[in-house]
Amino acid sequence: MKNLNPNVSVDCVIFGFDNEKLNVLLIEQKLERGKSQLALPGDLILDDEGLDEAASRVLKELTQLEGIFLKQFKTFGNPDRVSDIKDLEWLQSYREHPQARVITVAYLSLVKMGDFEPAASSFAERVFWCDLKELPCLAFDHNDILDEALYRLKEDFENKKTGFELLPEKFTLSHIQKLYEIILGKKLDKRNFRKKILKEKLVTPTNEKQQGVLHKPARLYEVNPEELMVQNEA
Amino acid sequence: MKNLNPNVSVDCVIFGFDNEKLNVLLIEQKLERGKSQLALPGDLILDDEGLDEAASRVLKELTQLEGIFLKQFKTFGNPDRVSDIKDLEWLQSYREHPQARVITVAYLSLVKMGDFEPAASSFAERVFWCDLKELPCLAFDHNDILDEALYRLKEDFENKKTGFELLPEKFTLSHIQKLYEIILGKKLDKRNFRKKILKEKLVTPTNEKQQGVLHKPARLYEVNPEELMVQNEA
Repeated sequence: MKNLNPNVSVDCVIFGFDNEKLNVLLIEQKLERGKSQLALPGDLILDDEGLDEAASRVLKELTQLEGIFLKQFKTFGNPDRVSDIKDLEWLQSYREHPQARVITVAYLSLVKMGDFEPAASSFAERVFWCDLKELPCLAFDHNDILDEALYRLKEDFENKKTGFELLPEKFTLSHIQKLYEIILGKKLDKRNFRKKILKEKLVTPTNEKQQGVLHKPARLYEVNPEELMVQNEA
Repeated sequence: MKNLNPNVSVDCVIFGFDNEKLNVLLIEQKLERGKSQLALPGDLILDDEGLDEAASRVLKELTQLEGIFLKQFKTFGNPDRVSDIKDLEWLQSYREHPQARVITVAYLSLVKMGDFEPAASSFAERVFWCDLKELPCLAFDHNDILDEALYRLKEDFENKKTGFELLPEKFTLSHIQKLYEIILGKKLDKRNFRKKILKEKLVTPTNEKQQGVLHKPARLYEVNPEELMVQNEA
């Protein structure tokens, strides 16, 4: 029998990028009488495991995903975060101490959706990618956790260019502008964006151009790893 | 009787700036037979308080400091973090469940030392500012927590210019260079630094010069709040 810590859990916010939009990985938890609730993948930690380890284990147990880098970003400890009436039934069905206060350590990751194939297991009845623009009401304070994760994701993208690994090896300036627009969640002015990105020297032109397109082929660029490193170390 | 959560604590890393160096606020905890140990101010949370609230309460209880903005930066949950033999005596003297695993939510702040006058209370026998260059061995994993706090402080300073509020209203370029050097913990090349800082437009020249100095008076600058805001929002 696993020895769970009744007071501490982990929750994972896995953002999935599909070249068109940002999605988040959700699980469906089954309740009685055909009801269910949606949540981020998360569970109590074992009393003898580290936090990073717990996050990887819980993600794998619920979604079968593994090998994903999970970054701890914030701990949520509102004393009432698991006492909402909407969450009572699930807690009573699955937790040994449904009344216990639970503090949750939240992790985030950003992956290319095509690289991972989630599959529901354990108490997850279903696992699916949900378009961030069509978010339902989630269990506990998971909507707040998700909001904060998105804020941190944008911050890391702007400060550390986390997310540049989502680009193909060679890409057009329109392609990278789209990446920025999807992650930052806003339209950018084409001319200003190009000026800025070229000035930062994070990408450099190759001698190649797009092939097999109907319009005038655009130049292909690649990430400048040295400049990316310098800016992150600065 | 306060109802403490046996599994979750908060720890506060308060950096103090004194125009010359960075210091950190430590407490001395008394043990039997005249022995003692040094630690960051921290304690278990109450079962009915939020995490930010707990951090402020604990800091005040141990050091009498209040009104300090505390930023949560990381949660430490190594399963063995409070089981080192060196920490046993203190845990047995002060904790109801000395064997319990404790996960700690760590907070940090950066203050002007002169603005705050700490005073020991509760189980803190003594409270003092310790030069970061002369750090002793601390209780539990507090040296690791401090290392991580310092890393985050530098990151925030570079990305968000947190720490610019330590400058006086008007300052010379040498003054701001010193602030950078103290927080980043390294010497900077004067010429490159000036070029960079002026290019970023974070500070703008005033029409005033230094007064009452023996050398050639240097121009005074002030922070450009608009540019600071733009860079943080970018």
